[in-house]
Parts: sequence; C-alpha cells; structure tokens
Amino acid sequence: MQAKEHIVSAPGKVILHGEHAVVHGKLALAVGLDLRTYLRLQPSSSGRVSVNLPNIDTFLSWDLSSLQDLLPDCKGADLWGACEPDPEFVKKLCLFADLSDRSPDTRSLAVLAFLYVYLSVFSRSRALPSVTVSVWSELPTGAGLGSSAAFSVCLSAALLSAQGAVAWPQAAEGHTARWKEEELELINKWALQGEKIIHGNPSGVDNAVGTWGGVLRYHAGKISPLSSVPVLRILLTNTKVPRSTKVLVAGVKDKINKFPAIMNPVLESIDAISSSCERTLIDMASESRPKHYAVLEELIDMNQHHLNVIGVGHPSLDTLCQVTLAHGLHSKLTGAGGGGCGITLLRPDTDCSVVQKAVQELQDCGYDCWETSIGAPGVRLHSLSSVKSEVLKILSSY
Amino acid sequence: MQAKEHIVSAPGKVILHGEHAVVHGKLALAVGLDLRTYLRLQPSSSGRVSVNLPNIDTFLSWDLSSLQDLLPDCKGADLWGACEPDPEFVKKLCLFADLSDRSPDTRSLAVLAFLYVYLSVFSRSRALPSVTVSVWSELPTGAGLGSSAAFSVCLSAALLSAQGAVAWPQAAEGHTARWKEEELELINKWALQGEKIIHGNPSGVDNAVGTWGGVLRYHAGKISPLSSVPVLRILLTNTKVPRSTKVLVAGVKDKINKFPAIMNPVLESIDAISSSCERTLIDMASESRPKHYAVLEELIDMNQHHLNVIGVGHPSLDTLCQVTLAHGLHSKLTGAGGGGCGITLLRPDTDCSVVQKAVQELQDCGYDCWETSIGAPGVRLHSLSSVKSEVLKILSSY
Repeated sequence: MQAKEHIVSAPGKVILHGEHAVVHGKLALAVGLDLRTYLRLQPSSSGRVSVNLPNIDTFLSWDLSSLQDLLPDCKGADLWGACEPDPEFVKKLCLFADLSDRSPDTRSLAVLAFLYVYLSVFSRSRALPSVTVSVWSELPTGAGLGSSAAFSVCLSAALLSAQGAVAWPQAAEGHTARWKEEELELINKWALQGEKIIHGNPSGVDNAVGTWGGVLRYHAGKISPLSSVPVLRILLTNTKVPRSTKVLVAGVKDKINKFPAIMNPVLESIDAISSSCERTLIDMASESRPKHYAVLEELIDMNQHHLNVIGVGHPSLDTLCQVTLAHGLHSKLTGAGGGGCGITLLRPDTDCSVVQKAVQELQDCGYDCWETSIGAPGVRLHSLSSVKSEVLKILSSY
Repeated sequence: MQAKEHIVSAPGKVILHGEHAVVHGKLALAVGLDLRTYLRLQPSSSGRVSVNLPNIDTFLSWDLSSLQDLLPDCKGADLWGACEPDPEFVKKLCLFADLSDRSPDTRSLAVLAFLYVYLSVFSRSRALPSVTVSVWSELPTGAGLGSSAAFSVCLSAALLSAQGAVAWPQAAEGHTARWKEEELELINKWALQGEKIIHGNPSGVDNAVGTWGGVLRYHAGKISPLSSVPVLRILLTNTKVPRSTKVLVAGVKDKINKFPAIMNPVLESIDAISSSCERTLIDMASESRPKHYAVLEELIDMNQHHLNVIGVGHPSLDTLCQVTLAHGLHSKLTGAGGGGCGITLLRPDTDCSVVQKAVQELQDCGYDCWETSIGAPGVRLHSLSSVKSEVLKILSSY
C-alpha cells in the first residue's frame, strides 16, 4: 500500500424520468447528481483504523489487532467474485461494533458497510493496513439521492485501489482522473456489496450512477450508461416532507390493480417520455439548442402530471412546481415522490437572479435548495488542488 | 294555436369526462346541468311577435305583416325533415333584422335563431301566430355550458308545440311534464337547426343534452343517452378566464403530432376514465354508495391531471382544484379548459358549511360559483307552480 493520501469522490443520483414506472418494466433514466461525496484515505502508522463521518457525527477508531480476528475466511476468494454479503460475517461485525440488527440507524449502517468492505477487500492479503478514512458529503441523507451509494462507491474505489486490486489513476494538478472501464466494473461490484449491507435489496442503480455518473438507462433490471451526454444545470429541492418509498410503491401497485385500463396507458406514456428524453439527450450531446430545452421542459411537465395520476404527488411538490413555473422554470418530483425531492431544469442562459429569486421563495416554503447539475461524472480520483477548498478544509481536519 | 301561456325549460350542459379526447375518437360523457333556461310563450292579440331576452338586454317586436314576407317557401316541406339552414334564407333574415354577417354578437345570434326557428316551424301553415316569447336563463353565456343549446331547445319545444307538430304534455299542478320520445327527437332536430344558426358547425351534443338531460354517451359522432342515471350534487365554478376553444383544440392536436407515443396513451387512459365513470353511474342508478363517490372522485382527479398533460389546464383551474381539495372536494375542468369552468363533486352528505366555505374562498379568487347538480332532466313543460318564484317573477314582467 502506498504511503500517499488520496481523495476520491462520487456523485449522488436522481431519477430524471421513469421512477415507479421502472418497477413495472418501463424505462427509467438515472443521472449523476453533482452533489458529491468525498473520501480522504490517509495511510497512518498508528496501528489503528479510524473512520470519520462528520455529516453524521460519527468518529470511530479500532486497533488493527482487534479487527484481525474478524477477517472472513476468504482463502482462494477472488476480489472479482464480490458476492452476496455472508450473513454470518455481517452478524459477527454487528456484534463487534455493538450494532443492533433491528431497525439500524444511518450511523450504524455506515460503520457496518465500512467494516464489511474494508475487511473483505483486505481479506485476501490478510494484512490489514492502518488508515484513516474521512468522508464528507454534500448530499443530504435519506432523501433518495443515493448518498449511501456514493459512500459505498468511494469506499470501494479507495480501498480496492489501496489494496492494489485496481490501480490509482493519475490525476494531474488541478484535475481529476477516472479509473479504467474494467476497474470501474470491479468498483461497482464492491459498491453494490456496501449497498446491500445498507439497504438489504438495492436495485443496483444508485451505485452504478455513483460509479459511472452521466446518464444510465435502467430497464427490466438491466443498467447501461449512455455513451455521451450533456451536463444540465438544475435546481435540486428537498421539500423535507418525509415519505415511505415502500408505501408509495405499494400504492401505485394497488392503483394499477384497481384501474388497469386507466393506469397501464399512463405507464406506457411515462415509458415514451423516458425514451423521448433519452433521444433528446443524445441529440444534445453533439449540439445543445434551445429547442432541446423546450422539449426537456415539456417532458418534465407531462411526467409530473403522470406522477400525480399514479398517486405519488404531494401538495409540497405542487408548490415547488408552481413557485418555479412562476419564474418560467419547470419542475418534477424525483424518486419516490409523496414529498421528498424535486428537480428544476435550468437553461444555460437562465439568469442567476431568476434562480436566486426562485430559491428564496422555495426556502421561504421551508425547502432546502441546491443549484447543481445532472449528468455529473462518476467516481473520480482528485488531485488535492481539484478539491473545493471548503471540502478540503473539512477532510483535512481529521 | 291554444290561447294558454306555457313555460318550458331546458338544462345546461357540462362534460363530465372526455372533453378533447372525444375529438380524437374517444368516449365522452355529457350531462344535464341543473342551471336551466326558461321560456314563456304567451299568445297575444297584438298582431305582433315580441321577444324578450332580459339576460342579454334584448327586447324586440315585429309586426306579423312584416314577418309574413320573410316566410321561406316550404310548400310540401315536412317539419320532420329539419335540415341544414338555407344560407339564402339566413341572409334574408340578417338583412331584415339589420344584423351584420360578420363576427355577430350573442344578441344578434339569439334573435337570428329565434326568427329562423319561428318562421321555419310556422312556414308549413303559412299562418304566423302573434306571440310574446320571454326567455330567462340561469346559465352564464359563452362559458361552454350549452346556454345557446338550452335556448334553442326551449324555442324548438315551445314553437313546435304551439304549431301542433308535437303535443303539449300535461303537467300536473306543482309538476313538470316530458314530451314523448319521438317528439323529443323532433324537438332535438329543430334545436340543432337553431344551434347551427348560432354556432355554424355544432357537434349536436349540447342540444341533445338540452333535450334529454341525464347523461349522454358521445362517441365517434354517435350520441346516446344512458337509460338510468343518478343526479349528482356539484359545485360549478366559472374562473372567468377567457379562452378560445378553437385554439385549445388545435394545441392538443399539435401536441399529439409532436409526441404521439406519449399522448396517444393519455387519450386511451381518458377513454378508460369515461368508461369507468359510465359503469359507476350505471351502478349508482340502482344504489348509490360511498364507494361509488370515492371512485368518481379518483376519476375526476386522474382526468384533471391528464387534461394538464394534453395542455388544456390553467393556473386558475389549479387554484380551483387546490382550494376545493383543501375542503376534501375533488374538481376538474369541464369543456375546453384553459380557464373557463370547472366542476366539483359534492357527496350527498357533504356538509353545507363545507360547501359554503369553499364557495367563499373561490369567490375570493374572483370566480363565480353555483351549487347545482348534474344528471338534470332534459326539456320540460312546467305547471306555473313548478317554476321557481324568482324565475316566474322575471318572466311575468314582460
């Protein structure tokens, strides 16, 4: 293991179109959100492993010797064979970290995922390195923005690189660097293991977006990145209205069963919206024109109405749409709906003052807003000078 | 012609489901609206024909001798053969009444329709009766509520009865009476002629609703009444936002051409909503239960979202939906959209205080509201004591 420190980052995720419909076999587009999770990996000589997660006020440290006993028996196991988490091993880790199995909180799950990936990745060599891992995320947690996947992807990329299973890419001063395609495959595989620890039965979309960024087609369980996509300015709004994805998904299913002749065409129409958006994004990759934005705006409006039809709207989301539309901006919910987050498309020439006014009005509604972008790149290794100073400051304080 | 005075009335119309979709071959449900147009026919010995239309401040009177010259040559013509208005005859009437052919106003069109139906109906006998016709309507004009059709139906029923082509039904004291089915067919035919004078190319739905009331299926140009339907309490709201039906219909067509794969399933879904509503109304005719109202409410919400998708919504209609939903009431636009009118379903047990509060808030938005019902009966002859006193007072003042 190299003695140099490394900083990696991975994007969050939003669903641009196709949420809920994807559960019923329709196309969804998942895109990289440029609110990123940053992980700093520092080799240390303390003989300890430390984890600093300031977002969730979690700071832990273990003696390497105590961790050594936990190492899974992976004789002959191949890192490329990342597979289902072994329930016995997870149980052992829970006991070790004094974590309850039932309804675990964000902190416990993050620690568990770290221990799982760290111990699994280094189980082949059976030599655990002494490191300090500090993670800072721009993403709110539990908002359906793939914060756990961004965490898992960062962990996977940093620890696999530290282990030597993949090579640290070369990031020129002021720039970031990308792993090779087959290395990204491995990073994604291990990130999915982390996601399984945290979510039980993840779709695999969030970690794929964290790994590849850009725009991913997600259809009938198959995930494939679009080769070339534009980066789009957006406003991300968190209404902070709590919702249960499980309850919303079940509600949609009930509604389809109750009114199949009414609901199935709506799912078809959503599918056509995703396809139409995909074609527009591909067109925009070569040259992006105002007419493309007009289409994207129409698709957003139409899908938002459809999401209301299938029963996953919420008055807070109606407010988001109305407030932004009053400024000529088009919004839709993203993800589960019933509250949660929405996205608002900004054109390249949308004036900052317009955005500021909209943000002010949304904040007056009690919402959180971020001006950011989608189509953001996937996991990256950073040169120190490519990391925003405020993020560097936080990561360097551990 | 009998010497007795007669009062007839016909209902307005709203589209319950299927507006716009009907243009593209889908099912629509048109229903009788219990805001009625009343016509009083008084035989007179003045040798004049007088028309009083206080709603539009129009009071006219002609000498029978001057009208006699206008009589069309209908030798051998059968009243049952009501056919396309003869352009020459219409031109003659315009000249007589000093009405411009271009962009005629409501008053001119109403007078023209009266003269057309009066002269055509009595052309067979060539003996014009001296009568005073007074009309008062509870319907706002130009709001897409079929006010011109209700006027034409009343004219047609009263004048055909006066001529003897159909028989005045017998209305017991305090009651109303209905013409026989084949007489209604004739009344509807002549009402359509009146509508043609006023609208040029009417669909025929408005006069059919005015004639039969209740609920009519309108599909692929075919209009057929449901045999038994419930009367439903509603709130009718006029946002008073002006709109052009022609522009809205063209906008929908453009959108279908632009996004066929997205829009055609929406039309299909609207079709399924109309069918589902039809089935529910048929069920309710035998016994109306809370579960039926829950379905009707869901259908209203879903269709309102669809109408937004096809581009005929308006912020004023969003406000209507939000204000009423805050009181647990479900609304949708009716007719062309883009402003205009909306309907709000009331349950039999919806408390008056709830309705009052909603009405107050809607009026505070600048809207006009009427608590009324749909599924209202078609054209009726009234006994004097069956006419609301305020209406009788107005009609009796001429």
